[in-house]
Amino acid sequence: MGKDIIADHARWPRLEDEIFKVSEECKRAIKEKGRDKIINSTLGTLIDDDGNLIAFNSVYDTLKNMDKKSIASYGAIEGDEAYLDLLVDKCFGPYKPKAYIKAVATAGGTGAVRHSLWTFLNQGDYAICPNWYWPAYLTMCEEFDREFKTYEFLDEDFNFNLEEFTKSLDFALEKRDRVVCIFNSPANNPTGFSIEDSMWDKILDVIKSRAVDGKYINILLDVAYIEFAGDGSQKKFFQKFSSLPENIITTVAYSMSKSYTAYGLRAGACIIISSNEDMANRAFDSMKHSNRANLSNITHAGMNILVDIENDEEMKKSYENELELNRLLLEKRAKVFVKKAKEIDLIHLPYFGGFFISIPCNNPKEVSKKLKEKNMYIVANKNGLRFAVCAVSEEKCEISPKLIKEAIDEVNR
Amino acid sequence: MGKDIIADHARWPRLEDEIFKVSEECKRAIKEKGRDKIINSTLGTLIDDDGNLIAFNSVYDTLKNMDKKSIASYGAIEGDEAYLDLLVDKCFGPYKPKAYIKAVATAGGTGAVRHSLWTFLNQGDYAICPNWYWPAYLTMCEEFDREFKTYEFLDEDFNFNLEEFTKSLDFALEKRDRVVCIFNSPANNPTGFSIEDSMWDKILDVIKSRAVDGKYINILLDVAYIEFAGDGSQKKFFQKFSSLPENIITTVAYSMSKSYTAYGLRAGACIIISSNEDMANRAFDSMKHSNRANLSNITHAGMNILVDIENDEEMKKSYENELELNRLLLEKRAKVFVKKAKEIDLIHLPYFGGFFISIPCNNPKEVSKKLKEKNMYIVANKNGLRFAVCAVSEEKCEISPKLIKEAIDEVNR
Repeated sequence: MGKDIIADHARWPRLEDEIFKVSEECKRAIKEKGRDKIINSTLGTLIDDDGNLIAFNSVYDTLKNMDKKSIASYGAIEGDEAYLDLLVDKCFGPYKPKAYIKAVATAGGTGAVRHSLWTFLNQGDYAICPNWYWPAYLTMCEEFDREFKTYEFLDEDFNFNLEEFTKSLDFALEKRDRVVCIFNSPANNPTGFSIEDSMWDKILDVIKSRAVDGKYINILLDVAYIEFAGDGSQKKFFQKFSSLPENIITTVAYSMSKSYTAYGLRAGACIIISSNEDMANRAFDSMKHSNRANLSNITHAGMNILVDIENDEEMKKSYENELELNRLLLEKRAKVFVKKAKEIDLIHLPYFGGFFISIPCNNPKEVSKKLKEKNMYIVANKNGLRFAVCAVSEEKCEISPKLIKEAIDEVNR
Repeated sequence: MGKDIIADHARWPRLEDEIFKVSEECKRAIKEKGRDKIINSTLGTLIDDDGNLIAFNSVYDTLKNMDKKSIASYGAIEGDEAYLDLLVDKCFGPYKPKAYIKAVATAGGTGAVRHSLWTFLNQGDYAICPNWYWPAYLTMCEEFDREFKTYEFLDEDFNFNLEEFTKSLDFALEKRDRVVCIFNSPANNPTGFSIEDSMWDKILDVIKSRAVDGKYINILLDVAYIEFAGDGSQKKFFQKFSSLPENIITTVAYSMSKSYTAYGLRAGACIIISSNEDMANRAFDSMKHSNRANLSNITHAGMNILVDIENDEEMKKSYENELELNRLLLEKRAKVFVKKAKEIDLIHLPYFGGFFISIPCNNPKEVSKKLKEKNMYIVANKNGLRFAVCAVSEEKCEISPKLIKEAIDEVNR
C-alpha cells in the first residue's frame, strides 16, 4: 500500500450510513407534507403512533431520581458486580445454562460482539453469519482484519438453512483453527426470524461434531431483541448451552438499548458460557483488558438503572409493564402487516418478533427509491427491504404491504 | 504459543487494578477508624473535604432537566455535530491552531488515545512516552500490539528532558516509519507537571527535523486535566500546532470526565489537527470506522450536557463558576502540600496543576505499605508515589508531606 499518515490497516472510506441518509430525507418530507402523509420505516428505535421516541418512564424516572454522585463516578472496568449478576439473571430467566458463567460490561450489544470477534479470533480467521445480517458485523470484521463469510440464511421452506451453515462452518475450519458463528436470534435484525428450539439441537450437533481437537468454536448469540421476541419461552434455548465440549465457548451479547429503551446510554454485557472454569475466567480477563484499552469502563448510569430497577419491587413491576405493553404494540403492528401481506401475496421472511420484518426482492435500492414517490421511506439492504414495525403505526402497517408490493412490481416488471 | 480457546494475541493475565485494591483497603480503614483519622490519597476524582465525590450541580441539573427522549436516543456514530463543534471551541479557547480540524466523539479521553494508537500505528510500531505515565497507555499498546517505549521524563533540573525524548524518537523512527509521541500535559497525570511554551518550541523543532519524507509522526496531546491547569493561558501552546509539515498529525484527547466531573458518562473527543485537509478527513474516516466497530456511538446524555450548558448563558456561567471554584480548591491544597514539602526537604516533581503530585523515591511499594501504618493510603507506581490533591483535604495536605518523608526514610534508610 502507498505511503500515508494513516496506518495501512486503518484506511477506510467514509462510513456512509445509508439508514441515516434515508432517515434525513424522510424528516424533510415530513416537514414538507406533514407526518400523516409519510410512512417512516427508517428508524431502529421504538416509536409511538404519533412519531415520538418511546422512552420508558420507569427507566428515566429511575435515572432522574439517581444520586448525582452515582452518575458522576466511574464504574468498575469489567462492570459493577451487582449489575453483571442481575443482568445475567435477567437475560437467562429460568433457563440459565449449567456451566461456568462470567460477564463483562460492554458498550451496548456492539461491545459484546466486538469482544467476541477480538478475543476468539486471530487476524485472518473467519466469522460466519447468515446473509441477512446487521451491517456492523461486517464493519467490525473489516476493522479487526477478520474474514466475514455469509451463508444463505433460510432454505426454500423458510427454515434455518442448516446445510449452508454447515458448509460455511466446514469451510472456515478447513482454512483455519478458529471460528466465530454469529447468530442474531431470537427476533433477528433485520428479519424478525427466530431459530426454533429443535433447530438449535441440530445446529449444536453440527458444531459439536466439528469441535475436534485443535479447533476452537465461539458461538456468539446476539440477543439484542430478545425481550421483544416472545412471552418468555424464547429464552428456553439458553439451556442448550450447558455442558458443551471445552473447545466450544458461547458468548451472549445482551443489550439495554432496546430492552430498556436506553439506546443512548451504551450499556450491555458480554456473557461468557463455558464448561471449563479456567477458560471462562481467561475469556473474562481478555475482555477486561479490552475494556481498559478501548473505553476504560461503561456508562455508570446505565448500570445503575438496571440495578436500581431490579432492586425496587414497584419500579420493577412498572418497568415490566412498560416492556410488555410495547412488546404487544409491536406484535399488533406486525400482525396487521403480515395479514395484509398475505392477502395480497407479498412475500416476507417469517416474523417471530422484534423490531423488523424483511421483504426479499430484486433491486431493493430501486424499490426503496420508488417507494419515496409513494411517501414511504424504507431501508434497503442487499437482499430486500427492512420494514420497521418498531417505528410505523398500526394504521400505516396496514397500508404498507400494498405500497411495497406495487413498488416491487413497478421496478421489477 | 500453546493451543487455547483464547486467540494468541488476546491472552492476558487478569488486569489487577492496584489503585482499586489500595482504595478498597482504605475504605475498610475508614469504616474501622473513622474518616478523620485516615488520609485517602487513592482516588482520581475530585473529592470535597468531607470525603464526598464532587459532582457539579450545573452538569447534573442539566441532565435532570433533559428531555428523556434526548437521553434515550442514539447519538451519531462520529458524535453529534453541535457537540463536536462546541467541544473544539471549548478545548482550544482563543488559541485554536490554524489548520484543518476535525473531531470524533470518544469514550472519555481513553477512546481518543486508543484511536490515535490504532489509526496512526501498525502492529510493531512505537508509541514513545515519558517514564511517569498513566498506566492505561501501556495496556492499550499491549492490546493492539504496539511497542511502548518510555524515556526519562525530566532532567536533573526538573525540566522536560529534551535529550532523552529525542533519543527515544530517533530510536523509534530508525526501527520503523511511524511513531506516536504521547504527551500528557498540561497538568500531567501522575505528576502535575506542565511542559512550558518555550520547551514546546524545542520539542516541535526536533519533531519537525525528524519528519522527513516517508516518516509519519502523530503528536498525541492528552489534555485530560487541562481545565485544572491554569487560568486559561495553559491553552496558548495549542497555537503552535498550526502549519506543521503534512507528515506530522496532531491529535488532542479531550475528556469531559474531569472538566465536567462526568467520569461515569464516558464522553470525550479526539480532535484531529493537520495542515492537509484530506489527511484530517481520512483520519476522521478511520476513527469513525473504529467507533462503529467498537461501541457504535458514545453516551448521548454526555454530549447533550455539553451542548445544553454551552447554549444556556446562565447555566454556562454557573458551570464556569463551579469549575473555577474547584480549580482554586486544588490550587490551595497543592500550595499547602508544596510549602510543607519544601520546609522538610521532601522532594517532589514540579507541580503546575491537575489532580496529582508525584514524589520520586526508592521502593515506592514498600513506602506505600509503610504509610498504611501511618493511616495514609497512597498509590505507588514504578518511580514513586502519587499524591492525590484532588482527594485530600487542605488540612490533611498539610500533614501529608511529613508522613511521606518519614515513611521514605524508614524504608530506605
